[in-house]
Amino acid sequence: MPCIVRFHEIGGPEVLSLDEVAVPQPGPDEVVIEARALGLNRAEEMFRSGQYVQEPVLPAKIGYEVAGIVQAVGANVTHVRVGDAVSVIPAFGMNDYGMHGEVVLAPAHAVVAHPQHLSWDEAAAAWMMFITAYGGLIDLAGVGEGDTVLIPAASSSVGLAAIQICTMVGATPVALSRTSSKRQALLEHGAAAVIATQEQDVLAEVRRLTGGTGARVAFDPVGGPGFAELTAALAKDGIILVYGALSSEATPLPVMDVLGKHLTIRGYELFELTTDPERRARATEFVYNGLDSGALKPVVSTTFTLDEIVASHEYLASNQQFGKIIVRVTP
Amino acid sequence: MPCIVRFHEIGGPEVLSLDEVAVPQPGPDEVVIEARALGLNRAEEMFRSGQYVQEPVLPAKIGYEVAGIVQAVGANVTHVRVGDAVSVIPAFGMNDYGMHGEVVLAPAHAVVAHPQHLSWDEAAAAWMMFITAYGGLIDLAGVGEGDTVLIPAASSSVGLAAIQICTMVGATPVALSRTSSKRQALLEHGAAAVIATQEQDVLAEVRRLTGGTGARVAFDPVGGPGFAELTAALAKDGIILVYGALSSEATPLPVMDVLGKHLTIRGYELFELTTDPERRARATEFVYNGLDSGALKPVVSTTFTLDEIVASHEYLASNQQFGKIIVRVTP
Repeated sequence: MPCIVRFHEIGGPEVLSLDEVAVPQPGPDEVVIEARALGLNRAEEMFRSGQYVQEPVLPAKIGYEVAGIVQAVGANVTHVRVGDAVSVIPAFGMNDYGMHGEVVLAPAHAVVAHPQHLSWDEAAAAWMMFITAYGGLIDLAGVGEGDTVLIPAASSSVGLAAIQICTMVGATPVALSRTSSKRQALLEHGAAAVIATQEQDVLAEVRRLTGGTGARVAFDPVGGPGFAELTAALAKDGIILVYGALSSEATPLPVMDVLGKHLTIRGYELFELTTDPERRARATEFVYNGLDSGALKPVVSTTFTLDEIVASHEYLASNQQFGKIIVRVTP
Repeated sequence: MPCIVRFHEIGGPEVLSLDEVAVPQPGPDEVVIEARALGLNRAEEMFRSGQYVQEPVLPAKIGYEVAGIVQAVGANVTHVRVGDAVSVIPAFGMNDYGMHGEVVLAPAHAVVAHPQHLSWDEAAAAWMMFITAYGGLIDLAGVGEGDTVLIPAASSSVGLAAIQICTMVGATPVALSRTSSKRQALLEHGAAAVIATQEQDVLAEVRRLTGGTGARVAFDPVGGPGFAELTAALAKDGIILVYGALSSEATPLPVMDVLGKHLTIRGYELFELTTDPERRARATEFVYNGLDSGALKPVVSTTFTLDEIVASHEYLASNQQFGKIIVRVTP
């Protein structure tokens, strides 16, 4: 029997196990995928450790991203066929579907044929990072020509995706990273400028880069004390998209700044996009076209094998990666 | 010579003085108004004490609202004539124009003929309260039929205006007040329900009133520690309009709540509306029609005379008022 990744208790990477389970039968609107590569996300670490917006139902499946070959399809499925190379858009809850395993069941609406020139690693890495960045920057904030966008946690996969999407639409991506250790790599990956938040004055740097006006958009998965620097560095009528809560410290709301500059702070999760068929279709088309043309290119940091699943989560927790962590699955 | 209200140093109510100044000559796009009543606002208290978004240029004029009779008009002014009963929309900075005095100069775009059945007190009270509430609730949040709206500081003039506007468009206004002392008055002024925030569990009450879903909109001039209760009481995809910073305490941003419910927090000042000719015209029409039909009715708390200007600001600071403080001017 094939193995899937599960956990039987909430905890650290060590709670993950490879459990043999029967190959699932697809329902009418489901697809069975034989995995070649799995993409890892911060969401899975939070889900595993009980800090996610959804509580895991034990024993819990896990995983938002897979790329592989269609092994079976349900009666209603017409857009992909057995044998197709496909990958999966995160458009479901992990208590319903988990993508990390040798053979997995996915809801048909989440399964797409990706551009053929992508490797399995790239295909497994593509959708979460680019659709998350698209949803915040394009769908919600309407980023375009001439906008300056502040990107904290810029060396994360979503941060790198945001840099690429800004460049694709003519905006200026400014990467924020805690130290300058990743400065050169961020510049090589398309950042117009890099601000090391623990070493530089964020406000002064943003003012310098924008001729004094500030940035129109910030795309922030961190929160915490640095949030006040972000609001200070925004232009009048600016918007901060809050799409994560990586900081464990309290986040202050600088009310006078929010008020005086008419700022918008918007909590954002990609699921509001991917569970809405119309917005999902627009997002998928945008990202597909970007991947197809090469304007968008998944950044893969490190690869593991499936029997190293615990080590892959330990590496995720270590914050050493630059881009996406991939787990390869040998059929 | 007529007197106007000015202050020569930043400070408490006692810094206000009645200074004799020459009657101003109107520029081509200006109107001279002989005052009958002045409306007082929190903005003036903050301006006088140096806590406003604009720093006063000393000696400083003051005042956003006046109702009176047109005494002279500039060459380009055609929409009002000498002898008309008019009032003023806050659509300028107080360093440029101050409305508090016996005879004052106003920019023509801010001067409107109000519905004739309004008293001078009501006309001087009408525009700031209703346009502020309209801008947040209707222009930005699109409040309509079926929405529940949380209104902190509900006994302020803008709070009472928000209650009336909610009722006018078929929404449910829920008044928030620190204690229950103003409960009966708020119910009599149109609140569908009143929550005493220091005596009741805000979240539990809002859940009870909304069948568990929470409110779609909050219209908050306070901030501070109570902000977290507001975000907790909002529904998925809810919006908080932050239009003031009355609390002197820090405001926490509850990131997980903002994230999980895709909340929007929007800093809002009515000037973004009143300095935009199109949005100002829509706002003015909405409020004019509401005043004309009687759906909107200014709430006047207490009246003073011009020589009691210091006492009127002391009363404003005391937070005893229910609705608008008016200063009457005898011609």
